[in-house]
Amino acid sequence: MALIVQKYGGTSVGSLELIRKVAARVAAVRGRGDSVVVAVSAMGDATDRLVDLAQALCPAPDPRELDALLATGEQVSCALLAMALHARGVPARSLTGSQVRIRTSSAHGRARIEEVETTVLDAMLAAGEVPVVAGFQGVDAAGAITTIGRGGSDTTAVALAVALKADECQILTDVDGVYTCDPRMVPDARRLERLSFDEMLELAGQGSRVLHLRAVEFAAKYGVALRVLASHGDGPGTLIDREDPTVEAPVVSGVAFNRDEAQIVVSGVPNAPDTAYRLLQGVSGAGIEVDMIVLASNQDGTIDFAFTVHRGDHAQALELARQGAAYCPGARIDSTDRVAKMSIVGVGMRSHAGVAARLFSALARAGITVRLVSTSEIRISVLIDETELERAVRIVHNEFSLSGQSGNY
Amino acid sequence: MALIVQKYGGTSVGSLELIRKVAARVAAVRGRGDSVVVAVSAMGDATDRLVDLAQALCPAPDPRELDALLATGEQVSCALLAMALHARGVPARSLTGSQVRIRTSSAHGRARIEEVETTVLDAMLAAGEVPVVAGFQGVDAAGAITTIGRGGSDTTAVALAVALKADECQILTDVDGVYTCDPRMVPDARRLERLSFDEMLELAGQGSRVLHLRAVEFAAKYGVALRVLASHGDGPGTLIDREDPTVEAPVVSGVAFNRDEAQIVVSGVPNAPDTAYRLLQGVSGAGIEVDMIVLASNQDGTIDFAFTVHRGDHAQALELARQGAAYCPGARIDSTDRVAKMSIVGVGMRSHAGVAARLFSALARAGITVRLVSTSEIRISVLIDETELERAVRIVHNEFSLSGQSGNY
Repeated sequence: MALIVQKYGGTSVGSLELIRKVAARVAAVRGRGDSVVVAVSAMGDATDRLVDLAQALCPAPDPRELDALLATGEQVSCALLAMALHARGVPARSLTGSQVRIRTSSAHGRARIEEVETTVLDAMLAAGEVPVVAGFQGVDAAGAITTIGRGGSDTTAVALAVALKADECQILTDVDGVYTCDPRMVPDARRLERLSFDEMLELAGQGSRVLHLRAVEFAAKYGVALRVLASHGDGPGTLIDREDPTVEAPVVSGVAFNRDEAQIVVSGVPNAPDTAYRLLQGVSGAGIEVDMIVLASNQDGTIDFAFTVHRGDHAQALELARQGAAYCPGARIDSTDRVAKMSIVGVGMRSHAGVAARLFSALARAGITVRLVSTSEIRISVLIDETELERAVRIVHNEFSLSGQSGNY
Repeated sequence: MALIVQKYGGTSVGSLELIRKVAARVAAVRGRGDSVVVAVSAMGDATDRLVDLAQALCPAPDPRELDALLATGEQVSCALLAMALHARGVPARSLTGSQVRIRTSSAHGRARIEEVETTVLDAMLAAGEVPVVAGFQGVDAAGAITTIGRGGSDTTAVALAVALKADECQILTDVDGVYTCDPRMVPDARRLERLSFDEMLELAGQGSRVLHLRAVEFAAKYGVALRVLASHGDGPGTLIDREDPTVEAPVVSGVAFNRDEAQIVVSGVPNAPDTAYRLLQGVSGAGIEVDMIVLASNQDGTIDFAFTVHRGDHAQALELARQGAAYCPGARIDSTDRVAKMSIVGVGMRSHAGVAARLFSALARAGITVRLVSTSEIRISVLIDETELERAVRIVHNEFSLSGQSGNY
């Protein structure tokens, strides 16, 4: 008898008909003798509609009140799911974040889960009931309702699984697993049977939208096995777990990409110790996230300094970099927001040399220019022209033999 | 510096534009140096829409889950009102019933308020903040969200006023006070400046929809002055307070009416000690509320037994009465749901004889047949044909000189 935490996203509970199907699925898990705790998101676009309502009232709504407002979305879906479970004869009870006591920090809109009390949940599970927990929300020490940021219901589910020492945390969604690449981009992308936390972290950080980054970090930290599977359909999905050292990992597990990039290049800057600091201080001081950073020396003793930011931050970052460059005589600034980032991820890179060379060679043969490179132990990312992205992803997906039938790694 | 509790109903916060107006009104009260606590209902028909959603999912939703669902309606409106107050520079905070700790019984859908904790409210008032409290909801001892029944936001407001020892509890609504009669029925009905709790109780119990009966009972019990006034408009409204013995009360203060009546008459029943019991046991056993009851003896030793029920209960009550009458040989049953009840209310009746005679005489002159009569110390109700209701109300309103200019009583 296992304890399973299941998280159903907004599209999985987007209508009463779908909520009935979710209830049937929860009942089936219970019918197999397992215990279930369910975490749910708000129905469909309910959260967006509440945000629109608040912004129509005032452009910058108070964060505390916005959280109180948004939290109603999950309260609605979990009350409805509990009703649908009752209608199938399954004893269930809806719980808000405050009723469970999912204690968070007070940073409204992006609160961090600090502690999940299990008293209420343990009592319900012991009584054979299904707790249906509102995702995305918690309560701070002062009793204020908090939300933990977009996609936060994944994190709620993982936090519940950690606190309850669940056997598995299942993320039920509108795709049936994690793929070698987004199937909309590469039609013959393959579902992965299994993936390590590290790989999933890199994929989530590099543009894969299947799982929320923070949820994967949380699961990895506490070693809770995650499974991504289709909420309305069969199939084993993708298991995300600690690396299995007994199985040889493929060199590359997946290809991720992100179109929302902008690149700023400051060239011909005198190479002084504080150059990088001067150029970036304004940007980071404004809270703009800088992703790739490359510094290259020229033969004349000057340096070229390039970095990328989110496309939405492009104009502001450019202006701030310009102010920084004013301290650097002779500096020239170029920038573009027509660039995209492609990343290959795989734990096998650790033990296989030449992966970068193979990647650059494949791109060079196709005439695709690499503008920037950044790497981690199990990832290589390249910045390329946005118009080349689709071709580059397909070439690389093929180069590393990712297409074809699903299989264990 | 007074402490005012203001309650805004669903139509008063039915749109963002109206919520902004409510915020302006709350700011104005505060601007005069008074402290304000606000209780709000759900926006417009939000509660109805949530009920429809639940019933579309399952015909008889679990009462606990229905309460969790419905409570979101007030949570939305009070978060939005708090935002609108911030936008005007008024420090405010939304509070759910659970955050205030409005402790209720566990009778979901019709919970009774047992205690209102004032710790949070007192601290906010001391800090110059406006607490914006979700009406209609509370929390039981186990932490479950409860609702206190339709119209319950009035009761929330009164309970807040009692707990906080407020100077006045204002019910802001879509009418500008309590009238001598519904102005849609009697166009020259007059707004009452002042009314006693007893009169308001009778009017609310006899079909006046301005105030929720339980809220008036609560206010009367604790002597909290209530004021009914228009949420979007000026004017002093109607003050409902303890009777003022120094002012002579008019004989009749108002005329109320209720169309949703059905009458069942069992005639020619042998007069045995258990007759009334046999005839009514099924009806009351089924939880059907019986309003007027009249028992009259005939010359042949049999009795006629008549009673009224809500029109929606007519068919069921008739069938149950028929079963009861089966034990009474010779009984005949008649019934109609085309009847209506009209009531006149006034504390002056206590000291003025002949009010009933004057009422019956006026109706008789107009050829209107009275089918049943019931009375209290300050009320006379008559059951008449529904088709006669409008005429009867106008005749009686005129007979007791209720029309004309508003004035103190």
